[in-house]
Amino acid sequence: MSAPDREEIDRRLRAFQESLASHDPPLDVAIVVESVDLYYLAATMQSAHLLVPREGEPRLLVRKVLERAREDSPLDSIDPFPSLRKLPEEIGDLCGPPPWRVGMELDSISAALFAKYQAILAGAEISVVSRDILALRSVKSAWEIEQIRAAAEINDRIYRDLPDLLSVGLSTVELQAILDCRARTAGHVGLVRMRGHNVDCLIGIVVSGPTGAIPGPGEFPIGGEGPHPYMGTGGDWNKIEADTPIAFDYLANRYGYHHDQTRMAVIGSMPPEAERIFEGMRQILRAAETKLRPGEIPSRIYEESLEQARTLGLADGFMGLPGHAVRFLGHAVGLEVNEQPVLARKFDAPLVPGNVLAVEPKFTHPEFGVIGIENTYCVTDGEPERVGNTPEDIVVV
Amino acid sequence: MSAPDREEIDRRLRAFQESLASHDPPLDVAIVVESVDLYYLAATMQSAHLLVPREGEPRLLVRKVLERAREDSPLDSIDPFPSLRKLPEEIGDLCGPPPWRVGMELDSISAALFAKYQAILAGAEISVVSRDILALRSVKSAWEIEQIRAAAEINDRIYRDLPDLLSVGLSTVELQAILDCRARTAGHVGLVRMRGHNVDCLIGIVVSGPTGAIPGPGEFPIGGEGPHPYMGTGGDWNKIEADTPIAFDYLANRYGYHHDQTRMAVIGSMPPEAERIFEGMRQILRAAETKLRPGEIPSRIYEESLEQARTLGLADGFMGLPGHAVRFLGHAVGLEVNEQPVLARKFDAPLVPGNVLAVEPKFTHPEFGVIGIENTYCVTDGEPERVGNTPEDIVVV
Repeated sequence: MSAPDREEIDRRLRAFQESLASHDPPLDVAIVVESVDLYYLAATMQSAHLLVPREGEPRLLVRKVLERAREDSPLDSIDPFPSLRKLPEEIGDLCGPPPWRVGMELDSISAALFAKYQAILAGAEISVVSRDILALRSVKSAWEIEQIRAAAEINDRIYRDLPDLLSVGLSTVELQAILDCRARTAGHVGLVRMRGHNVDCLIGIVVSGPTGAIPGPGEFPIGGEGPHPYMGTGGDWNKIEADTPIAFDYLANRYGYHHDQTRMAVIGSMPPEAERIFEGMRQILRAAETKLRPGEIPSRIYEESLEQARTLGLADGFMGLPGHAVRFLGHAVGLEVNEQPVLARKFDAPLVPGNVLAVEPKFTHPEFGVIGIENTYCVTDGEPERVGNTPEDIVVV
Repeated sequence: MSAPDREEIDRRLRAFQESLASHDPPLDVAIVVESVDLYYLAATMQSAHLLVPREGEPRLLVRKVLERAREDSPLDSIDPFPSLRKLPEEIGDLCGPPPWRVGMELDSISAALFAKYQAILAGAEISVVSRDILALRSVKSAWEIEQIRAAAEINDRIYRDLPDLLSVGLSTVELQAILDCRARTAGHVGLVRMRGHNVDCLIGIVVSGPTGAIPGPGEFPIGGEGPHPYMGTGGDWNKIEADTPIAFDYLANRYGYHHDQTRMAVIGSMPPEAERIFEGMRQILRAAETKLRPGEIPSRIYEESLEQARTLGLADGFMGLPGHAVRFLGHAVGLEVNEQPVLARKFDAPLVPGNVLAVEPKFTHPEFGVIGIENTYCVTDGEPERVGNTPEDIVVV
């Protein structure tokens, strides 16, 4: 088992406290309740409130399960928390008498729950600290990058299994089920996490042929028909056909951290036009990966990929069918799938060492479905490091 | 493919409009954005806003994907919706000039998103309509019950496969992966949905032995250690041992509707004490199921199960270890796993025909893990109907 230790957590908490102090005026305390942020700052996903004062020791208040939180978390102050009504007393202990300036994850807690906190913390001025936490999480430590490497081994593994699994007559949704099973028996935690509202995120997506070209409701460069309108993304019940590209987009996660990878396969042979598109996407990846260095600008990397797609004659279909394309080339991964920075417009802050990005040039073709490639990279002081060892070539069976 | 038709959707929308009118003062319009509620009221899970005026025709405004929403939904008015800023204009068209009384799903949308709606609908009085929708959803139509029967076939199927799968040396988390795969290749949509914040809900949970007795952060009568603190519920990497009870809690879902079922198995033989506990849980189930009739009171059914557990000498451990027990005997299922009514205190409204309830007497034993049984039932005008055909007896291999 691999979980963040005391040093890792202390470093994160100190950085978060600096972030609270940098607000104008400074926040007195943050109340962290979102499970992934809790895991990041306290190393537990038990049901709890983490109070982080601007100065001094954080306090973890656990609704359930106290014993487990104490086992998971290296924090010193971990106590039971039977009722929300105790919150003002606890904050008073940490911050002195009200009024307090409080930070909360307003992107994550519901409007109804927020109203409850407002009533309980009557008089407190509550502002959003989600961005503070996401900014910290965007820079991974050496330990965190190790966790992503461990996830990459799962993606390497399922790709090695592919040739034995592929056969015409299997549907893409069945392939998803089988590959998920392989991933999980190889150590995958069994779920992936994505921040946001109404978001369905699968461990893996497999699409092939015309239904793979159907755009989906989510912000993904692969849509797919899905098995039913209740789950309208990813593979469907149509049987895979020979000589038709098959795209595999897989999120591995072994110890909480995600590794994102896309590869292609075909039973028979790739149509020459599909081959040409694949080579185009690979060129875009080659160009982008050399720019994953400190000081490079995410929005510029995105714009340059658009320009390159145009030059290659692959603009219409790049990152989705015309009118349905998503507007990014890649995204950071970590404890969630959709972290920051994003290789997209408005992300103008330069890359820094510790950013970990999945770069995924993809092309949607009405007949072939999706053709693309995706690697996960680490920005370092030196050369960009590709995480994982899966060959890039199309698997042909 | 099985999806709600025009008649089904019209009936739901009329009932929802009556519910809007019953507010005091009446609401002018509801804005529905939560994906499951959208599916219930518009038969699509595409990214959209459904505007339901108190009177007149609802309007579905689709961000993405318009063509898919038009295919999925039987509604007449389905239009593109490029920007939230269009919302006041659209509501004005339906309801006349402001001020408006607007209903929203405040249990579901985030505080940050809610602030956006408040700014855009400046002057509107926004109140919660989640309860209205959940109340409608608590009474299933004949068509909806058919969908739950279709899900039950998947649970029947994976249970038939059990004897071939069980062997010492497999871990419970591996068994989960394998059974999920079987469920999905048998038609499971591949995910289950549960309402709430920070909620992880697995397709299936398998626990066995002492780690199965570990309470979890969620409101489930099975916790389990899980594979890692990032996913601290359900099966773990310990190998299953002989003569140790194995509990299987599975949520089948074929066409959007869930069927919930728990069964037991053992490799070798059940310890006599575990057998006695199992028979106790089965007696509690027998007693409860006869009460699933119109006019019976959910809270009373729960209280009587507690009383029965005491009489059987099984109070300490019933629905969880002492201090960690959950406070219900069962819950409704439908498009989500945690629907209403719940067999719990405060649910004092009588059952009505069309309620579909999973009843799950379970006992946690520090050494054996969880021992229990669960069926899904339909409340009818006559006898309660058990949905599904899986034998109740412990599978012994």
